[in-house]
Amino acid sequence: MSDDHRPAPGELFDAAGRGDRSALARLLSMVERGGTDARVVGRRAHGLAGNAITVGITGAPGAGKSTLTSALMAVMRAHDEQVAVLAVDPSSPYTGGAILGDRVRMGEHALDDGVFIRSMATRGHLGGLSLAVPEAVRVLDAVGFPTVIIETVGVGQVEVEIAGEADTTVVVVNPGWGDAVQANKAGLMEIADVFVINKADRAGVNDTLGDIERMLSLRSPSGWRPPIIATTATTASGVDEFREALHAHGQWAASSGERDERRAKRAETELDRIITAQLRARVGALHDADAWEATLADVRTLRVDPWSAAESLLG
Amino acid sequence: MSDDHRPAPGELFDAAGRGDRSALARLLSMVERGGTDARVVGRRAHGLAGNAITVGITGAPGAGKSTLTSALMAVMRAHDEQVAVLAVDPSSPYTGGAILGDRVRMGEHALDDGVFIRSMATRGHLGGLSLAVPEAVRVLDAVGFPTVIIETVGVGQVEVEIAGEADTTVVVVNPGWGDAVQANKAGLMEIADVFVINKADRAGVNDTLGDIERMLSLRSPSGWRPPIIATTATTASGVDEFREALHAHGQWAASSGERDERRAKRAETELDRIITAQLRARVGALHDADAWEATLADVRTLRVDPWSAAESLLG
Repeated sequence: MSDDHRPAPGELFDAAGRGDRSALARLLSMVERGGTDARVVGRRAHGLAGNAITVGITGAPGAGKSTLTSALMAVMRAHDEQVAVLAVDPSSPYTGGAILGDRVRMGEHALDDGVFIRSMATRGHLGGLSLAVPEAVRVLDAVGFPTVIIETVGVGQVEVEIAGEADTTVVVVNPGWGDAVQANKAGLMEIADVFVINKADRAGVNDTLGDIERMLSLRSPSGWRPPIIATTATTASGVDEFREALHAHGQWAASSGERDERRAKRAETELDRIITAQLRARVGALHDADAWEATLADVRTLRVDPWSAAESLLG
Repeated sequence: MSDDHRPAPGELFDAAGRGDRSALARLLSMVERGGTDARVVGRRAHGLAGNAITVGITGAPGAGKSTLTSALMAVMRAHDEQVAVLAVDPSSPYTGGAILGDRVRMGEHALDDGVFIRSMATRGHLGGLSLAVPEAVRVLDAVGFPTVIIETVGVGQVEVEIAGEADTTVVVVNPGWGDAVQANKAGLMEIADVFVINKADRAGVNDTLGDIERMLSLRSPSGWRPPIIATTATTASGVDEFREALHAHGQWAASSGERDERRAKRAETELDRIITAQLRARVGALHDADAWEATLADVRTLRVDPWSAAESLLG
């Protein structure tokens, strides 16, 4: 730790790698805030990352994703597997490891060094969550978590996108009429590698199963047919099978080349997003330039047409 | 006309200014297509424009906007006012003065040089309709139309935005329960300078009137209280009053400074959009650069982190 109590990212990485959860939380806060620190963290994480498997979990609010994730964590721990969870909520103004939600969620895992849960919104990260999440995943990967679960709160466009950009994507629905149809509308059918019908102690499991199978039959056949697992997360019923389905997809994805293909695609998408975000920042910076007000005045008074003005500002 | 039958924008402007509708249509096609020709047209139009009043007309599909616009045109022509209409449809893959729709719509006005109707989608214009429409308006302004009506097909985000960026914005609703509430949800209450309850021969006019008045009472008071006009466009009932309401708002906007303020704001918005579109084009151009594939390969194989890659590509 440095004298001014602001440890450098390098020191934090070393500490986090030794299991210091507070150091890890500070690294993730740097990523959330964006800016210079985030860049240093990102570079360091990148050099150390590349081993973690990512699992995206999405589905409508109320489907029981948090409970399912917690039950999955317990089963993974019983198999001595370490796991980190990023709970992504684009709509939340709050974030960070310190908030009540994370402490409550940690619950039974609070004294277990093999798990880590972190809520994530976006404080000021350039490009928002779709850029901050891959960076945060790399940090968790870099400090040694072999599995990183990315759990999204709702099924908004950003959340579906984030959940879909994982090695394995899980879509959680509930029993009963129409739930799977709604999931289909939200674009979840295309991204699902594994389906979970959670709250399977309720009526209508077979209806939902039938709905999903019908929709899957419309999907163009690839090498992987998504399994449909019925769970009751509150009693851990079906969660063993859920974990096995994740492993099965992981093995298929690794051997078929699907995983490498997705990762290559994600790298390209991320590069595009970063470039777009950087260019947007440059537009913002133009507003601060001396020439901006003068040029804007010329455009407002019709002395200069806006395209010529844009050209002269962009140089 | 030049030897190769591809007249220069300058020649087309001269011809269009003399009333040549086919030359005007070709200018607008150039704007729709975007690219180098569009830039030349835009610059020329900008130098000649600045006199037209723009009227945006929006409302749910089926509200009778086209019929109302046509009836308004007839009343304006009876007062010897010239008018051009841009019918904006972001969802349409078709466009251009030649399509059947425009010919049908021209209908009774077909032989009248004082009116002009043009459908507009976006063929390839950088930045889409929100950039192509102001350019098209400038062309119609430049060739001498004192009023340009921008009529949007639906109430999508782009359409509301486009209709709201006029000197006077008209929101068209129908009688009956809930229609005004839907309009409110679509963000139309805030942008309305004039309300029209069209199809006023149907039941429920007073309900809708009450709904609008209640919603208006929640709006922060500005210098202008939007009038609410009941029309039956098919019989031209109320359309005289509609025209008068437009004039009244126009006079208030001119004398209060509101018009200049809106135009200055629009100039700034347009400049921002052009800059963003130009920067996006540069991202696209990066994909064609020699360095792109090599850099992307480095990112995919984790040799370089994506932020460093973006920096090196952006230079």
